[in-house]
Amino acid sequence: MQLQDVNGFVIDLDGTVYRGGEVIEGVTQTIEKLRSLGKRIVFLSNRGNISKKMCYNQLARMGLGVQLDEIILSSTVSAAYIKEHYEEAAVWVLGDEGLRDELREVGVTLAEYPECADWLLITLHESLTYKDLNEAFRAAYHGARIMATNADKMFPSAEGLSIDVAGMIGAIVAATGREVELVIGKPSQLMADAAIGALGIPVEQCLIIGDSLESDIQLGKKAGMMTALVLTGNLTREAAELSELKPDWVWDSLAALQKILATNEEAEGREADGSKQ
Amino acid sequence: MQLQDVNGFVIDLDGTVYRGGEVIEGVTQTIEKLRSLGKRIVFLSNRGNISKKMCYNQLARMGLGVQLDEIILSSTVSAAYIKEHYEEAAVWVLGDEGLRDELREVGVTLAEYPECADWLLITLHESLTYKDLNEAFRAAYHGARIMATNADKMFPSAEGLSIDVAGMIGAIVAATGREVELVIGKPSQLMADAAIGALGIPVEQCLIIGDSLESDIQLGKKAGMMTALVLTGNLTREAAELSELKPDWVWDSLAALQKILATNEEAEGREADGSKQ
Repeated sequence: MQLQDVNGFVIDLDGTVYRGGEVIEGVTQTIEKLRSLGKRIVFLSNRGNISKKMCYNQLARMGLGVQLDEIILSSTVSAAYIKEHYEEAAVWVLGDEGLRDELREVGVTLAEYPECADWLLITLHESLTYKDLNEAFRAAYHGARIMATNADKMFPSAEGLSIDVAGMIGAIVAATGREVELVIGKPSQLMADAAIGALGIPVEQCLIIGDSLESDIQLGKKAGMMTALVLTGNLTREAAELSELKPDWVWDSLAALQKILATNEEAEGREADGSKQ
Repeated sequence: MQLQDVNGFVIDLDGTVYRGGEVIEGVTQTIEKLRSLGKRIVFLSNRGNISKKMCYNQLARMGLGVQLDEIILSSTVSAAYIKEHYEEAAVWVLGDEGLRDELREVGVTLAEYPECADWLLITLHESLTYKDLNEAFRAAYHGARIMATNADKMFPSAEGLSIDVAGMIGAIVAATGREVELVIGKPSQLMADAAIGALGIPVEQCLIIGDSLESDIQLGKKAGMMTALVLTGNLTREAAELSELKPDWVWDSLAALQKILATNEEAEGREADGSKQ
């Protein structure tokens, strides 16, 4: 398959579109280019501690214009999953307020006390305190089942690499001896389904672009999408080439896509001119 | 061996001497009784987030008079261990300020930045924030070796069971993929040696009394002490009897010891009276 045959683009956010609060150079133009070609786009992120609205506002502040329904976060998918499968459940959240917003948005019940929770839902908690950790401990200790929006170990923040959800999960699992029953985020099929559903494009015509082999490329491979790895996250080209997960493309940055598309157009233009002669 | 032949008493604190900030009923009298009989006592606790001085003041506030050198905490033993084996090392602490006090007390160097640390020393952090967790993550991620004052999963606090050091350790281990190289606290031989050294009594004449099978009774068995389990922590008599670790005695509370000692004295008195006749 050629890049010009791809009709649905599934694009990761952290480390792919932006890094440390700034849009990566050339990315805005790439997205404009895709739109001008009539391509469908969704932004698929493992961020579980913010709501879709918060993400929309963050992107707008960075100068990136997207539609609210082009954003799919692990918080969004977690909320929809709980609503669909455990409608009666009371949920205790270990994580930032954004996840609670997303749960409320679809009408999931938040447990009043940790001890009353049916599920403990864990996400990144950038305002974590001991009290928060202890309440989550009490929820799990008293029998709440454990779900996580995602299980990423670290993320690139403005101060460098920072501890991610895996830390919050590790704390609760180690202290209670309980297991995490379900991780919603990439590379799960739940995230793939949400992305494909939003695009409304057959999976074979979809390309996932991200900076993580374990979450983005693995999701793409499992779901049957084309895959492109960008090196604007934590991976070097050498590390990417050593991996068993072979992405279809490896680009220095999402901006590389714009150049490839432009070159393709030019080539097509020449072919078209040629056929006229 | 009979109880009256025990000359050194190694007594746990949390759940044995006090619980939720209050001395357990009858414990003060038991300790007075031991003193009146000329027995040597040390209080051996896995608490690593307070200094010896803080512990001394806490016990005094609860109305329990002890000597400063009768207190041995995992913070004390950690500080001494690092001073002895890694004198040149710079240490980053994930934990409450008390541990830093204890390290400073013996002249251990505290790392200025997480990235510069040779060791990350983890203890309970009851004032934990995300920033603290992230700094510890950065220390371990940048190569600091990991040591923990102890590895207890939970402790009885005024609000019920609360998450302990295992949570802080679990967070760092899960996010970095690194391992803890050394756990200082009970049931380690380091703690046993510190207790026996402070008592100055042959180990065969020592009895450890505590509420935990895994830390107190196991330490006693490994080190060759007599062992007594008290049920003022989280264990029931049934659970204690099901365990493979068979303590020499199981008492409802440390207060039971006073009665046994009194009964023994009475019996000895009768024997003495008898022998006079």
